[in-house]
Amino acid sequence: MRLVKGNNFISLKDYDRDDILSVMQGISSYDDQNLKRFIPNNKKKLIANLFYEPSTRTSSSFYAAATYLGHEILSINNVQYSSVAKGESLEDTIRTLASYVHCIILRHSEEGAAYSAVQVSDVPIINAGDGIGEHPTQTLLDLYTIYKEFKRLDRLTVALMGDLKYGRTIHSLIQVLDLFDVHIHLIGPHELKLPLQYYKKEYIESTMLTENIAMSIDVLYITRVQKERGAVGNYAFTREDAMKLDNKCIVMHPLPRNEELGDWFDSDPRARYFEQMSNGLAVRKYLLGEILG
Amino acid sequence: MRLVKGNNFISLKDYDRDDILSVMQGISSYDDQNLKRFIPNNKKKLIANLFYEPSTRTSSSFYAAATYLGHEILSINNVQYSSVAKGESLEDTIRTLASYVHCIILRHSEEGAAYSAVQVSDVPIINAGDGIGEHPTQTLLDLYTIYKEFKRLDRLTVALMGDLKYGRTIHSLIQVLDLFDVHIHLIGPHELKLPLQYYKKEYIESTMLTENIAMSIDVLYITRVQKERGAVGNYAFTREDAMKLDNKCIVMHPLPRNEELGDWFDSDPRARYFEQMSNGLAVRKYLLGEILG
Amino acid sequence: MRLVKGNNFISLKDYDRDDILSVMQGISSYDDQNLKRFIPNNKKKLIANLFYEPSTRTSSSFYAAATYLGHEILSINNVQYSSVAKGESLEDTIRTLASYVHCIILRHSEEGAAYSAVQVSDVPIINAGDGIGEHPTQTLLDLYTIYKEFKRLDRLTVALMGDLKYGRTIHSLIQVLDLFDVHIHLIGPHELKLPLQYYKKEYIESTMLTENIAMSIDVLYITRVQKERGAVGNYAFTREDAMKLDNKCIVMHPLPRNEELGDWFDSDPRARYFEQMSNGLAVRKYLLGEILG
Repeated sequence: MRLVKGNNFISLKDYDRDDILSVMQGISSYDDQNLKRFIPNNKKKLIANLFYEPSTRTSSSFYAAATYLGHEILSINNVQYSSVAKGESLEDTIRTLASYVHCIILRHSEEGAAYSAVQVSDVPIINAGDGIGEHPTQTLLDLYTIYKEFKRLDRLTVALMGDLKYGRTIHSLIQVLDLFDVHIHLIGPHELKLPLQYYKKEYIESTMLTENIAMSIDVLYITRVQKERGAVGNYAFTREDAMKLDNKCIVMHPLPRNEELGDWFDSDPRARYFEQMSNGLAVRKYLLGEILG
Repeated sequence: MRLVKGNNFISLKDYDRDDILSVMQGISSYDDQNLKRFIPNNKKKLIANLFYEPSTRTSSSFYAAATYLGHEILSINNVQYSSVAKGESLEDTIRTLASYVHCIILRHSEEGAAYSAVQVSDVPIINAGDGIGEHPTQTLLDLYTIYKEFKRLDRLTVALMGDLKYGRTIHSLIQVLDLFDVHIHLIGPHELKLPLQYYKKEYIESTMLTENIAMSIDVLYITRVQKERGAVGNYAFTREDAMKLDNKCIVMHPLPRNEELGDWFDSDPRARYFEQMSNGLAVRKYLLGEILG
Repeated sequence: MRLVKGNNFISLKDYDRDDILSVMQGISSYDDQNLKRFIPNNKKKLIANLFYEPSTRTSSSFYAAATYLGHEILSINNVQYSSVAKGESLEDTIRTLASYVHCIILRHSEEGAAYSAVQVSDVPIINAGDGIGEHPTQTLLDLYTIYKEFKRLDRLTVALMGDLKYGRTIHSLIQVLDLFDVHIHLIGPHELKLPLQYYKKEYIESTMLTENIAMSIDVLYITRVQKERGAVGNYAFTREDAMKLDNKCIVMHPLPRNEELGDWFDSDPRARYFEQMSNGLAVRKYLLGEILG
């Protein structure tokens, strides 16, 4: 199983189709059970949840996953106020923690931080997002939401809508979808176009969700304008857009959301963003299960 | 039992005399045991302690209560730094957490936040204080301190002293005391008078603790000037005041305290504020016990 | 055993040679086992980790130690944002917590805070560092690192190098080393000389690590410039210094480190600072074991 090769989980970059599909099945086996059930564990571990950047959603989801699996968690948030403020390098912090715990879940603001951590750690590192780098567990839960709905990742048409420039989840998702037979539509304002480096295949581009696109897609994936990363631009999923969409098209969003996706759509049977978020628990339980045994 | 109606605990507003008295007995049954004993629990739950406003006392007390009952706690403090900073609504945060945990304890700065949370949550919500709204577990521990002392909530004379304008605990307590045969004295500076809406019965008002009042009261409840809410005014419980008080009169304070209650009184046998605080553990154990089974 | 006299652990000031040696043996017995093993505990306790000052290393190490011993931990960080901000005294915070938990680990910015806490606490207090006062568990782990290496604390020559003026770990360590037959070299810039009050014996002073000193020492203990306490000055352990050192001389550092100790030395067989840090886990497990049984 390549996922836990070397016991770290850092990137999806060298995963192939078969890897991804077998991960999907693995997550599915966790998802088939009650996600909030405590699983007896006579080999419990101590896991550090080391978050340099705040992220309630991701840290809470890892915390819950580890807890239900019977592990203990040492939460370290707001690292900016601690020894790091005394100039400590990430490497020394990782070395320190690695001598206290059995596994480190790392969220960091700098691309490549997770790789750096692996170099000096005696215990497994899980990448919970490193700046504009990757956020591989988010990508897995996005993929799993699609897989759970359609029982496949091939023969699908997916529209990615919104901030295609700064949206890390988009960049990550698109690379994995490219492994499969997926038609991709890119929809968004000119100012927020996908950076050139992510154009690996031919994508169909437009500035709005036309009726033609709306009728043809299986998934509409909307993202937030990453204002905190400097994005400027406006777009929103409207009631007219919703009416154009096919009945079987699901609507996803990585959350948090702002004005681009109103809560008027929440009760629509095609809305999948809350389920998507809740799939994060299955993904993280699977991952910790694979890595910690 | 109305307390856990709908499985949420939001407000004491629609509690009647009998409800309150049965709650007092329930708390008492927890208080009769060693409060710091771990109770074996084969139905443990994961509880989120979601504090938008910091409150060491309340969050610690809930944390301890849940831990002694054998539950697990996911603590989320300093929410201001996390996804909320990305503009997430309270409702979306609640929806997210509700998919990870079995119960949410919510402290928020805005009145009505707890009600809003209930509307979107799949799991029980416990109100740990919402702005100038309510702080019902504080009120329960205030009431229980009186009940524990006198074995009744009727035929009592209570003086509320200090910041009657901004003191949320006063507003909340007065409404429940009005259900019982309690004579209430209001003592405080003109600038910090009780807002009109809380005058449901006739209260005896004065600007200082006179000898007459001091001799007649069973409970002296002192509060802090809520400077952070804009209160201006000064008052303090003095050694002369203490000498006027009857030997059986107990002195309460919700803590934290400032200059209005000096530590010279701490060893006085009539001081009950530390016991009052420690009663918070019994109250919260009872509450979690009722809600989570 | 004086260590847990009165059940508190506040200072090493009144420890004598025999006390220290018996503590070393006690720590050793924990260190002989797998430090990351969970020890079954049917008398588990709830411990408050009360940190007024952030210190990831110390709080994490206590957290891990308590967790492996089967205890529960209530973590209170960033106290500056909580009831303390409402003007609460340390004493009231301690009284509050003491009514919820079985033991309090206290880190505070003011000298003497741990003593003040003991005066009002019903439960054991462990000093995790109080300002420029003491940080006794750090001193124990420093001593234990030396003891573990040489199987003795006598007949040793130790060089303390760097910020001798503000370095609390230095001040604390020197006082305990003075109990033993240890020759001490002080090496550092003039601006950062050891304060007069710590000169209890005769120490050999110099501004640099000469070849003569380097050849004669068993331990080189380097510290960081405490810029956050106002220290000004520069020094660094260089490759030339490393070449002068005897093969059996170990190099220690309390971490975090800055430019005074480069990572080029990390793989040198004489480097002990990571082991030193990891010894913190054994020290804290021993201490909690002694105090909580």
